[in-house]
Amino acid sequence: MKSITHLIAFILLFSSLGFSQSSVEVWDRFEVSLVGPEAGNPFDDVTISAEFTNGAVKKTVNGFYDGKGKYKVRFMPDRTGKWTYRTISKTKALNAKSGSFDCVAATGNNHGPVQVADTFHFKYADGKRYYPFGTTIYAMTHQPKELEETTLQTLKENPFNKVRLGVFPKYYSNVENEPLYYPFEKLEETKGANGKVKFKWDFAKFNPEFFAHLEERIDDLKDLGIEADIIIFHPYDKGHWGFDSLGMNNDLRYIRYLTARLSSFRNVWWSLANEFDYVKTKPRDAWDVYTKAVVANDPYKHLCSIHNGSVYYDNWKPEYSHVSIQNGSALEDFGRAVLLRDVFFRPMVYDEVCYEGDLPQRWGHLRGEEMVEAFWQGIIAGTYVTHGETYKNESNTVFWAKGGKLVGSSPARIGFLRNIVEAAPGPLELADPWKDHHTATAGNGYYLVYFGKQMNAEWVFNLPKKAGPKPGQKFKVEVIDTWDMTIRKIPDVFEMNTPEPYRIFDKDRKTVRLPMKPYLALRITPTDQ
Amino acid sequence: MKSITHLIAFILLFSSLGFSQSSVEVWDRFEVSLVGPEAGNPFDDVTISAEFTNGAVKKTVNGFYDGKGKYKVRFMPDRTGKWTYRTISKTKALNAKSGSFDCVAATGNNHGPVQVADTFHFKYADGKRYYPFGTTIYAMTHQPKELEETTLQTLKENPFNKVRLGVFPKYYSNVENEPLYYPFEKLEETKGANGKVKFKWDFAKFNPEFFAHLEERIDDLKDLGIEADIIIFHPYDKGHWGFDSLGMNNDLRYIRYLTARLSSFRNVWWSLANEFDYVKTKPRDAWDVYTKAVVANDPYKHLCSIHNGSVYYDNWKPEYSHVSIQNGSALEDFGRAVLLRDVFFRPMVYDEVCYEGDLPQRWGHLRGEEMVEAFWQGIIAGTYVTHGETYKNESNTVFWAKGGKLVGSSPARIGFLRNIVEAAPGPLELADPWKDHHTATAGNGYYLVYFGKQMNAEWVFNLPKKAGPKPGQKFKVEVIDTWDMTIRKIPDVFEMNTPEPYRIFDKDRKTVRLPMKPYLALRITPTDQ
Repeated sequence: MKSITHLIAFILLFSSLGFSQSSVEVWDRFEVSLVGPEAGNPFDDVTISAEFTNGAVKKTVNGFYDGKGKYKVRFMPDRTGKWTYRTISKTKALNAKSGSFDCVAATGNNHGPVQVADTFHFKYADGKRYYPFGTTIYAMTHQPKELEETTLQTLKENPFNKVRLGVFPKYYSNVENEPLYYPFEKLEETKGANGKVKFKWDFAKFNPEFFAHLEERIDDLKDLGIEADIIIFHPYDKGHWGFDSLGMNNDLRYIRYLTARLSSFRNVWWSLANEFDYVKTKPRDAWDVYTKAVVANDPYKHLCSIHNGSVYYDNWKPEYSHVSIQNGSALEDFGRAVLLRDVFFRPMVYDEVCYEGDLPQRWGHLRGEEMVEAFWQGIIAGTYVTHGETYKNESNTVFWAKGGKLVGSSPARIGFLRNIVEAAPGPLELADPWKDHHTATAGNGYYLVYFGKQMNAEWVFNLPKKAGPKPGQKFKVEVIDTWDMTIRKIPDVFEMNTPEPYRIFDKDRKTVRLPMKPYLALRITPTDQ
Repeated sequence: MKSITHLIAFILLFSSLGFSQSSVEVWDRFEVSLVGPEAGNPFDDVTISAEFTNGAVKKTVNGFYDGKGKYKVRFMPDRTGKWTYRTISKTKALNAKSGSFDCVAATGNNHGPVQVADTFHFKYADGKRYYPFGTTIYAMTHQPKELEETTLQTLKENPFNKVRLGVFPKYYSNVENEPLYYPFEKLEETKGANGKVKFKWDFAKFNPEFFAHLEERIDDLKDLGIEADIIIFHPYDKGHWGFDSLGMNNDLRYIRYLTARLSSFRNVWWSLANEFDYVKTKPRDAWDVYTKAVVANDPYKHLCSIHNGSVYYDNWKPEYSHVSIQNGSALEDFGRAVLLRDVFFRPMVYDEVCYEGDLPQRWGHLRGEEMVEAFWQGIIAGTYVTHGETYKNESNTVFWAKGGKLVGSSPARIGFLRNIVEAAPGPLELADPWKDHHTATAGNGYYLVYFGKQMNAEWVFNLPKKAGPKPGQKFKVEVIDTWDMTIRKIPDVFEMNTPEPYRIFDKDRKTVRLPMKPYLALRITPTDQ
C-alpha cells in the first residue's frame, strides 16, 4: 500500500528534527519539517508558509502545525528541475528556512492530478485520459484497522478509480461506530443518564493523528490509482459529535488546516459537501464562503465540486471545476443525463444515483442491472456515474458506509464498461444529442450504440448524419452484452450510402442480428481498409 | 383591437403639439410629446429623458425621437395617485418641461405586467396568477395588413396568452417576403444581375413608422390579454437585410431606442434572442453586454430571457427573470422537464419543443398529440411550454412564421388544459419530483395525475407520502381525457389510510376504473366534508 514517499512522510511524523528530501518525482510530495513553539495554541498562534520557485515559476503554500512542536510545509511540484524554497513566518524559529530539491520525472502510475479536459471530460496532468468510475465509502477512514485494510484489498480487486469519502466520521443508519481518531482535541466525554455519550471539543485545536491517518489512506488510494474525492462537510452527525455545527469561524479554521495538509496530495479532489442542503446549520450563502476559502488555500487548484441533497447548489460558480450531482432520475433511461450536463459547460459526474443493495429505503435498493444501466446511460451521454453498494450483512459493514467487501453484481460490469471506454479513441458524446439518445461517438468513426432494456431482434445499420461518416466509408460492428460481459464480432462489413435526412444507412440496408436480450450495445468502428 | 389609450397614442403620433393625458390607468401608458430640432441626426444628437414622481417614488425614463421633429417620453405608472414629471435634455426646447396626471385604478383585463412569483411561476402585478400558454409567430408584424388582422382574429379565438415575435423581419424558409416597414432608414435598394435585391441602410437612423406599427400590434395583443415576448435579435437574415450583423455600436443604439419606445408597454417581455448561438456575427460575450443594456434601459424590469439553438446561454445570470429554453427532448416523456428546471431557481418556459405540423424538417412535424403531451409534461413538472404550428398551406402562410389561421389539433386541447390549470388553487409542482413523475400537486389536497401514452385499465388510489394527506382525509376523483376534452366524475369517495413507505392508499385499496386510452389524467380534490 505504501510508496517510498509515504514511508518517508510517516517517518517524518515521529521525527523532531528538520529534514527534507533531496529528490522528488513531479506531482509527488515534498515536505519541509521544522521545529517550533509548543506553548499556547500553535494551531492559531503560529503561521508558516513557504515560497517555492523553479526559476520562472513561484508558488506560495501554507504550512501547518503537526503537534508536539513540529511544523510542516508540503509542496507538490508540477515540473521537473531544481526547486528552491524559503519559509515565511513571524515566528523566528520557522522563518527564512531554505533548501532545495530535484524534481525528477514521474514513474509508474504517477500521471499527476486529474484536470478538466475538453469542457466535459478529464485528463491527468501528463495528458493521459481519466474517465471517472467512482464508488462511495463515506466513513472509510473511521473503521477498525482490519476493516480498513479489507476495504483497500477490495478496491485493489475492483474497477473503481475514485472514492467519495468524508473527512469527518458519519453518524447515520448502518454506521454509528466511534472512529479510531477524532479531528479535534477532546476536552470531555461523559455519559448521560440515558447511556448516551456526550463530547466536548476544543475546535481551535486539531488532532494531528486523525489527519495523519486520513493522509495514510489517501496515499493508499493513490497507490491503487484511485482519486480521493474528499467530502469536507456532511450532515450525518445528529448532534452526536457536533462536527456539522462548528460555526463559521471554526469551519474556516478547519478548511485552512485541511487544505494546508492535503493540497499537496495529487489524488485529492475537494467535495465541499455531501448533500449540502441537508446541513441545516449552514445557510446557503455560507457555501460560497467555504468554497472560496478552499480554492484560495489550494495552490494547485484541485478539482472542486459540491454535492446536493434534493436542491442543487449554483454549480456554475467559477470555483467548481465540475458538477457533482445527486439525482437518480437523471440516469433512469435514455436522454436524461445530457439535459443537465449541457447547462454547465463542465464535466458532469452523477455522484449519487441510488445504490445497488437491499436496504428498505428506496435510494438503497437498486438491482445490479439498474446500477449498471445508470453507468451506461451516463457514459453514452458524455457524463460519468458513481457507484455505491448498500447490501446489509451480518457484520453490519454496508460498503457504502464503512467499506469491507463488495458482494453486488454491478462492479464487474462497471469494470467491463471501464475497459470499453478506456479502449475508445477519446471521450464519448451523443452524436445527435436531442434526437438520438442511443448513439455516442468518440470521433474518428467510433460509435457506441446502447439499447438499455430494449430487446431487439435486429438492428438496421444506421448512424446520425450529423458529423457522420462519408458515403463509401466502411465499418465493422461488435455486439456487446453489457451484463454477460461478452463482445462478439459481426463478420459483415457495412458500407455507407449517401446520407438521407438525418441518418446514414448501409448501402444494402444491411442489418445486425441481435439476440433479443436486454442490456446490449454495439461498438462500431471503421474497417482498416 | 384598440383601447382608448392606444387611440390617443395614435393621434399623438400625427400631432406636432406638445400634449399630455390628464388621467391614466395604473400600468397603462402616459406619453409626453414635445417638438424639438429636426436638423442633423436627432436619433444620435439629441437625448431626452424625464423624471416622474409620485411623492415617495421617483423614476427616470428615457425618451426618444419619433421623427419629423417630434420627441416622446413614455411612462408606465405602477401606483395610483397624482404623478408629476419634468423632462431633462441638453436641448433647450426639450428641457424642463413639466406636467402631471392622475393615475387611476385598473379596469377590465388590466392586471399589470407579469412578474416572477413563488420562484418557478408568474403573477400579474395585481396578484392574479398568470400561467403562460404561448405560441410563436416570428414575423407576425411583417405581413400584409389583412393577414395581420386575420392573425389577431385567430388569436382572439384561441387560448394563447403569450406570443413570441421578432422585432426584425425574418428571412427563412416559408417566410421570405419583404415587410411593410423597415426598422432603419433605407439609403438604397438595388437589384443585382441575379435579380437579388440589395439594400443599404443608415443604421444610425430609425424608421419611426416601423416602430409605430410594431407598437400598434403589441397594443392589439395587450387588448387580447396576450403577453408580447419580443425577440430583440435573431439569426434569420442570411445577408438579405443585414439586421443580424449591425455591429455592437449599432446593436446598442437599437437596444436603447427599442427600450425607450417599448418599456412602457405593460405586456412586453424581452427575449434577447431567438437561437442566440445561431447568430454567428455576435460572439457569446456580446450577449452579456446586450442583456445588461436592455435591463439598464428598462426602468420597469420587464421579464427578460434569452432563447437558445443547440447550446444554452448562462441562464443563471441575474438579468434573466426566467429560463427560455429550446429543447424538445425535455418534454418527450415523464420526469425530464423538472431536471432542467431545478437547476435555475426561476420559472422555466420551454419556448421551443418542436412544432405541430407537416414540414419535412424533424422540428416541424409533431403530431397534435405530441404537442399536447409536451404541454402536459411541462405543466405536471411545474414548467411551461410554448406552442408553434408549421402546417403548410396553399397561401404559404405557415402560422409559426407569418400567422394567419390555425388548423392544428393541439390549440383546443391546450385551451382545455389552460382552463384546468387556471381552475387549480395555485401553480403545480411534482409532489415527489425524482420518484413520481406523474403526480403534480397545487397544495390544499389538489392533485393532478397524468398518464401520457400509458393506457391503464385501472388506477389504485395512491398519492405520495411526501407532504401528503393525513389518514382519514377524503378525496374525490375526476377522470380527464386530455385529448377528447372530457371530465368525468367518479362517484366514489376515497379515504386515506395510515401512510406506507413513500405512498398513501385508500383504506379499502379502492381503485378507479380507466378506459384503456392514452392521454388520460386524474384530478383529485378533497371532498367538502
